[in-house]
Amino acid sequence: MKQIAIYDSTLRDGAQAQGISYSVEDKLKIVERLDALGVRYIEAGNPGSNPKDLEFFERVRGMRLRHAKLIAFGATRKVGVRAEDDNNLRSILAAGTDAVAIFGKSWDYQVTEILRTRLDENLGMIGDTIRYLKQQGKEVVYDAEHFYDGYKANPDYALATLQAAAEAGADCLCLCDTNGGSFPEAIFAATQAVAARFTTPIGIHCHNDCEMAVANSVMAVRAGATQVQGTINGIGERCGNANLCSIIPNLQLKLGLACIPPENMATLATVARAVADIANLPHNEKAPYVGADAFAHKGGMHIDAVVKNPVSYEHIDPELVGNSRRTLMSEVAGRSTLLARIQAIDPAIGKDAPETKRIIDRLKKLEHEGYHFEAAEQSFALVVRKMLGKHTPFFELIEFKVMVNEPSVNNVNSSAIVKIRVGDDIEITAAEGDGPVNALDNAARKALERFYPAIGAIRLTDYKVRVLDSKEASAAKVRVLIESTDHSENWTTIGVSTNIIDASWHALVDSIEYKLVRDQERRA
Amino acid sequence: MKQIAIYDSTLRDGAQAQGISYSVEDKLKIVERLDALGVRYIEAGNPGSNPKDLEFFERVRGMRLRHAKLIAFGATRKVGVRAEDDNNLRSILAAGTDAVAIFGKSWDYQVTEILRTRLDENLGMIGDTIRYLKQQGKEVVYDAEHFYDGYKANPDYALATLQAAAEAGADCLCLCDTNGGSFPEAIFAATQAVAARFTTPIGIHCHNDCEMAVANSVMAVRAGATQVQGTINGIGERCGNANLCSIIPNLQLKLGLACIPPENMATLATVARAVADIANLPHNEKAPYVGADAFAHKGGMHIDAVVKNPVSYEHIDPELVGNSRRTLMSEVAGRSTLLARIQAIDPAIGKDAPETKRIIDRLKKLEHEGYHFEAAEQSFALVVRKMLGKHTPFFELIEFKVMVNEPSVNNVNSSAIVKIRVGDDIEITAAEGDGPVNALDNAARKALERFYPAIGAIRLTDYKVRVLDSKEASAAKVRVLIESTDHSENWTTIGVSTNIIDASWHALVDSIEYKLVRDQERRA
Repeated sequence: MKQIAIYDSTLRDGAQAQGISYSVEDKLKIVERLDALGVRYIEAGNPGSNPKDLEFFERVRGMRLRHAKLIAFGATRKVGVRAEDDNNLRSILAAGTDAVAIFGKSWDYQVTEILRTRLDENLGMIGDTIRYLKQQGKEVVYDAEHFYDGYKANPDYALATLQAAAEAGADCLCLCDTNGGSFPEAIFAATQAVAARFTTPIGIHCHNDCEMAVANSVMAVRAGATQVQGTINGIGERCGNANLCSIIPNLQLKLGLACIPPENMATLATVARAVADIANLPHNEKAPYVGADAFAHKGGMHIDAVVKNPVSYEHIDPELVGNSRRTLMSEVAGRSTLLARIQAIDPAIGKDAPETKRIIDRLKKLEHEGYHFEAAEQSFALVVRKMLGKHTPFFELIEFKVMVNEPSVNNVNSSAIVKIRVGDDIEITAAEGDGPVNALDNAARKALERFYPAIGAIRLTDYKVRVLDSKEASAAKVRVLIESTDHSENWTTIGVSTNIIDASWHALVDSIEYKLVRDQERRA
Repeated sequence: MKQIAIYDSTLRDGAQAQGISYSVEDKLKIVERLDALGVRYIEAGNPGSNPKDLEFFERVRGMRLRHAKLIAFGATRKVGVRAEDDNNLRSILAAGTDAVAIFGKSWDYQVTEILRTRLDENLGMIGDTIRYLKQQGKEVVYDAEHFYDGYKANPDYALATLQAAAEAGADCLCLCDTNGGSFPEAIFAATQAVAARFTTPIGIHCHNDCEMAVANSVMAVRAGATQVQGTINGIGERCGNANLCSIIPNLQLKLGLACIPPENMATLATVARAVADIANLPHNEKAPYVGADAFAHKGGMHIDAVVKNPVSYEHIDPELVGNSRRTLMSEVAGRSTLLARIQAIDPAIGKDAPETKRIIDRLKKLEHEGYHFEAAEQSFALVVRKMLGKHTPFFELIEFKVMVNEPSVNNVNSSAIVKIRVGDDIEITAAEGDGPVNALDNAARKALERFYPAIGAIRLTDYKVRVLDSKEASAAKVRVLIESTDHSENWTTIGVSTNIIDASWHALVDSIEYKLVRDQERRA
């Protein structure tokens, strides 16, 4: 099976998208997901232009990657500067990756008008930079920026820039449709011409400005490209980069080309959703392959035909990419997934048990209210336990009061009172915090630790807020996700309410209860 | 200039999308927009399967259309029923349109397994139906459902179905990639084969399940198709239909084919947004050509190059489709963007003025704290005004107190006290709300409206929360974005704090102050 090297740039080119601002933690989490999916390269930052990226590269060195190579990205040496003296190249080397990507100009007009240098100096910049990085022992991907526009304007010069890169030892010549304005036939013809001329492997990097980035990438592969650059969910500047979540199954499931380990294909939908969550973007439910609507059928006729035979209105089996068929507006994730989760709690419950139906109904109701258990499996486990009568609450809230003051009083802006009952005992206590949620969190733990010292081991590691139906503005519904750890396990819980304090409270309670349930199970 | 007939199905196939439910009023409004844009056909309903559509066709008859023909859509006659006795065909005729579209089966498997009839009976159903409708004086578009899958499975039979339609007098043979699973090369080859064999005009109807619907439509046109079916914004079942908002400019601006009157092209972005509004869908801001991000630039290097010459990172002039360039404020934004924003407030300030440097330093500091002005231009304008000494605050906060109770007291979970000073006047008031931010918002407006009645015109239309450095969990910093409108202008403001109430307060104050500043400017 022919191999295609998948080159992910969610962390680098994806960071150019409006509204994206990854923390170092976010980036590390995305690296973990991409590596588990099995992409070949992860372009993770531009250390020369963003100092925060150097911190990331330092921390990522501690991670053990199974499939992927990390890539530090940057420009060729500056005009008139020796490669070994170039600050940007120094930053790229400081990132300490085995592989690097260097972009240079292919379009004569860009050289003379934007770089404002001579055409031969640009060839020197490309050659010198790559030669120097090869001397440092790096694998070098050369990104030919604006290649297709350059090839259209001046094919001889565009090819000369590739020649300079190839002669200097580049390991891949990646052809970029930087402005996203090229058409499939032009991409095919130009890529074929390049592939015929060079023995160096060819890559393709497309943008979606004509809504053809996926097709253009596929056409480039048909013309001989063996590396495909893109991003998860097509995250990227303007209209986005080529969407790897469509390209990978298109190439692997439809054209029989090996992109990722076959056993990982069924994780694609989950990876797509996880990356959207980490980037704090809404997941596109209409996305091919990985959106919740991708295999959703509405028309009665279509549903009947799909029931007779899915091939009627489905181009692939949705389970191949970890997605599932939905035949009703409100129908939730596939029954089999759900059943597996239920059976993890009670193996005796079958597909057609009345409990299964009750749980599905409850889940539908909660999803309708804005719950979203994809990222909060532990809250879902608690819902199932409660429905099966397998959960005894560890405590009961009698009341809380949260107060926020501006200006702060003695440097404290928020305080909370929490009153709970455990068995016959009642505890009331108060705590302060930086913000209302922090005050409430502190008060709740303080009240509960007397009864459950294990709570002292819980650390909240992440807190996310998403506004639902945000058109309701300040009275909108919010979804809070809390990620917790006790250093032997991580778990995520959810709360939904029009009141952010209330939503946070529900997620906090689930986090605490999940910890106590797990401790019970471990003792049993 | 070669003509392409644009055939819009936003109202018929688009209605199959999850979450779409048009009222008759909605449909009439969309017809008006589509006709003004200048599409050739509007497929507006399926009167045989949806009785509400008959009411629509009755009402639409009163509209005077300048460019478009309305189309009623439905299936071929039923197995074993004469066309003149078929109820579905009767409904189509009752719609009273000059043109109709009829879909039939092209894939042998669908005929025998789903329709459960003989292959020759299917040919009879196609031929009889079209012949009958032609006798009634209708222009007839024949939609060959599953054509590309059928052609792949049994090309002879697929072509025989088209032959039956053509001989019966069909005015167009529209080839459908119903499941959206076909690839550009296959679409090109099959379309070319059909175009070579028939003199009847050929159409193309694609779905986006492989994220290639736009490219597939373009390839079909390159192979000879002269009618293109699709929907505004790609609204449609599963992953959507082919997106006319991308196809029209692709064909007209890039390939020089006439799709709509050239003077209407600059209304495309507005039509896209209007249809999204009418359909009650969020507009996709990353959509090619028509999204707000389609020509938005973030990276400093990109912005500098775009300022030198837009062709550097723009594939077309955004004004051609009624869109505009945006340069996003961010840590990587170039000086030239900033300067343009500063000069909008004070044109006298130059690139090297000390004020410019002070503003840049302030911006860096704020961005470091978590501010993010790319989506909050109006908060940035207020920062600049303050730095230039051009802003007199309209009021001063003395204090606020926000209280949240669980359980709710008399059904109220949150209340707020706000105390402000305006000149020498002090006002203290209180309000309740659904959640703490809503209570604070209500109290602030109540306190201020006495002094500034114009505040009564502000409506908050969107509220977004992003947790920064979320590893600090419940004490993490949050960024709040508030979008406001006074129905003549929209603006977005930002607040950042570890305390979500405080962050919301800052965004609210900016929203109110921006409104008051604008009113002052308008009066001046």
